[in-house]
Amino acid sequence: MSLDTVLVKIDGELDAALDRLNTLLAIPSISTDPAYKDDCRAAGDLLVRDLASIGFDAELRDTPGHPMVVAHGGPDEKDDVPHLLFYGHYDVQPVDPLELWNTPPFEPQIEEVNGERVIRARGASDDKGQLMTFIEAMRAWQEVNGPLPCRITIFLEGEEESGSPSLVPFLEANREELKADVAMICDTGLYDGRVPAIVTQLRGLLAEEITLKAANRDLHSGFYGGLAQNPIHLLTQIVADLRDDNGSVTLPGFYDDVPDLTDTLREQWEGLNFDHARMLEDVGLSVPAGEQDRTPLEKVWSRPTCEVNGIWGGYTGDGFKTVLPAEAHAKISFRLVGQQDPDKIHAAFVDFVNARLPADVTCDFGNGHGAPASVMSTENPAFEIARGALSDEWGVEAAFVGAGGSIPVAGHFKNILGMDAMLIGFAKEDDAIHSPNEKYDVKSYHKGIRSWARILAALSEAA
Amino acid sequence: MSLDTVLVKIDGELDAALDRLNTLLAIPSISTDPAYKDDCRAAGDLLVRDLASIGFDAELRDTPGHPMVVAHGGPDEKDDVPHLLFYGHYDVQPVDPLELWNTPPFEPQIEEVNGERVIRARGASDDKGQLMTFIEAMRAWQEVNGPLPCRITIFLEGEEESGSPSLVPFLEANREELKADVAMICDTGLYDGRVPAIVTQLRGLLAEEITLKAANRDLHSGFYGGLAQNPIHLLTQIVADLRDDNGSVTLPGFYDDVPDLTDTLREQWEGLNFDHARMLEDVGLSVPAGEQDRTPLEKVWSRPTCEVNGIWGGYTGDGFKTVLPAEAHAKISFRLVGQQDPDKIHAAFVDFVNARLPADVTCDFGNGHGAPASVMSTENPAFEIARGALSDEWGVEAAFVGAGGSIPVAGHFKNILGMDAMLIGFAKEDDAIHSPNEKYDVKSYHKGIRSWARILAALSEAA
Repeated sequence: MSLDTVLVKIDGELDAALDRLNTLLAIPSISTDPAYKDDCRAAGDLLVRDLASIGFDAELRDTPGHPMVVAHGGPDEKDDVPHLLFYGHYDVQPVDPLELWNTPPFEPQIEEVNGERVIRARGASDDKGQLMTFIEAMRAWQEVNGPLPCRITIFLEGEEESGSPSLVPFLEANREELKADVAMICDTGLYDGRVPAIVTQLRGLLAEEITLKAANRDLHSGFYGGLAQNPIHLLTQIVADLRDDNGSVTLPGFYDDVPDLTDTLREQWEGLNFDHARMLEDVGLSVPAGEQDRTPLEKVWSRPTCEVNGIWGGYTGDGFKTVLPAEAHAKISFRLVGQQDPDKIHAAFVDFVNARLPADVTCDFGNGHGAPASVMSTENPAFEIARGALSDEWGVEAAFVGAGGSIPVAGHFKNILGMDAMLIGFAKEDDAIHSPNEKYDVKSYHKGIRSWARILAALSEAA
Repeated sequence: MSLDTVLVKIDGELDAALDRLNTLLAIPSISTDPAYKDDCRAAGDLLVRDLASIGFDAELRDTPGHPMVVAHGGPDEKDDVPHLLFYGHYDVQPVDPLELWNTPPFEPQIEEVNGERVIRARGASDDKGQLMTFIEAMRAWQEVNGPLPCRITIFLEGEEESGSPSLVPFLEANREELKADVAMICDTGLYDGRVPAIVTQLRGLLAEEITLKAANRDLHSGFYGGLAQNPIHLLTQIVADLRDDNGSVTLPGFYDDVPDLTDTLREQWEGLNFDHARMLEDVGLSVPAGEQDRTPLEKVWSRPTCEVNGIWGGYTGDGFKTVLPAEAHAKISFRLVGQQDPDKIHAAFVDFVNARLPADVTCDFGNGHGAPASVMSTENPAFEIARGALSDEWGVEAAFVGAGGSIPVAGHFKNILGMDAMLIGFAKEDDAIHSPNEKYDVKSYHKGIRSWARILAALSEAA
């Protein structure tokens, strides 16, 4: 086995690898729009053929929605090599507004922008370019070394951009087939566009819509103002009370299951030199919000939050209507970390709201379902091994990072398949995913392929 | 002069008076809808002819909108008799939803409901029936006694239901012609449907729309939550802070110009035995809101309030979008009493909001125009004289009451014409003004006509 030869092969084959990616990018596999149903299948089918061409036992598996791609390759189950599950998704976001694209979204182009070559197409970064980095790494490996150094299961979804309705049933129905030692999810990015990163903790989410109901009809504030409850006013008090002056959440017991940041992670995160001021400046702000005694990365990766995402009630049209409305509404979400239990937080929230209502005002709650945080067990040596391989490729020390948002598939792998996931990806913040003129740097693609070759080599060597 | 003969005449002429009202009610003078422009003019014109028929010097006066009716009658200016300005409006509300009317809105009917005769038509109560009580009282008076006992200026508007855009310019342009000793406005109701009432204080209004602006675009709460300001959260804090736990408004200086309730009014209002529990029950509520140390009528008639009438921001559609919005909005209104100055309150509000904003969040305010409260000088003997006349007619002691809402014309008469207004009317809460199946009790019409005859007699006797 020679890693160096594989890397040389990857360098030499880059144009061919780009061509194969472009063939995939040319298929408009927009999963949310039924008009592109056949295109989604065609994209899955192309990947099945591609995986078969490198010796995988690959199949398109039907679901009530778009099909899954499942493929098995590498050494036999009885061989003592690591077994990896690789996840990506072949569906893409819609392209509206089409008129803002400089080139047609499904006619991929290699362009030069500020001296860097980029692949311009819908899905270039999210997620076709990313998932192809792994397939191309395996292709190069096999061409140079023959058999793969790890046993590999490939699992590609076609519904990620439309809420993954078939994902959980499919995982549950194919639990045994999809289990592996560890999962690799390639749908994230480089930190700050330059530092390779493995996401090891993702915040969970509890989202709740509440409706306060007071009078049985809208009232005239001239007569009822000061005599009858105004549900908007009550709602503002409840929302305002949810956080204290420091930005901390005031729900009783909210922080009970929030772990302290480990010294190792604190050190790694401080080394990332996050530029809070620039991040705020980019969106027209200047004053850091939230918990004043925490660093910005700590806040966004490892601290829970409460945010009101929407509010409405009363008269919202032009001019004025002096109404006391019958109802007022808010959408409120909590980002969860560590062992915070969405059910327990939901119950505390319901109590918190109800305790603030007069006897004649009621509150309707949603179902209060949420997802807990995903915290990977980084003591699994695979994490440090992958981190070392990434550092080698990029010439800068790779970091274990958090993610402020939620990537539900990581939680499903943990809950249903019982394994941790390493989220490794090469996207950049300026890739314009979900927006017109999406791109993926050729450098991300090239070094992404090389990164996976290094990771495969390192994992098999350590085994 | 014989009041008794006038009253007998009114009783005997009731059917004819109802016929004349019905002729007016048959004209669809909907001021907000340009399709009824000619009908508005026709209603004004009918009133001009009606007033001319009882000897008034009556004219239709053009405005940029619908015309005003101005008429002069009674003794000469040099005679030492009281001079009254009478105000009403001949325009009516739209009739939608038409399908909820049991009879066509502009085909007036006399119906019997629970043993009481009612006049069923759009405008029966608001305000054609009410304004006709005064004209019919003068007609009967003249038929019995010849000349009127007071000098009368009649001023009828055709734009009251569409915001009175021509009112202030017309008053300013015709100040000298319209001035009188006191104004009579017939557009209010009996207290509790049975007690004759003179509204002597009306709350003012300051209405303001605010927009908090934070980031220059909507942000994803997974990454920015806890790092960037959420303008909805700031808005809820500001709105919640505007009132304390007792329901009192917290703007500095807000209560400086709020007078104490006089013992006389307190006594009269307590005598009205307001049923707060029933009033809340009617709208599905049970817990009194607002200042806990004030009686309900005191709160609604003589205390200032702050209410949020509308709020909106962020994602308000189906499902969830974990957004930190760029903006959040609220419509907030203050009811003003006594000598509270809208400009001063507005300045205090602007300071209050700005003091609660981080340096990178701004607030757009509206123009902050408002109207002060109207408080009539009840030491003017005309008020007690009219109250006595009303008590005589209705067999129950009439009351000086307040009004929680605003009736701008009273303020304009004070500010532009320099005179107080007595708001006397005979409508009932179940008249369904602005709603389908509007009605006016024949008793309100009949005793309303008799009430004005008594008031004219009493005012002239006292002079």
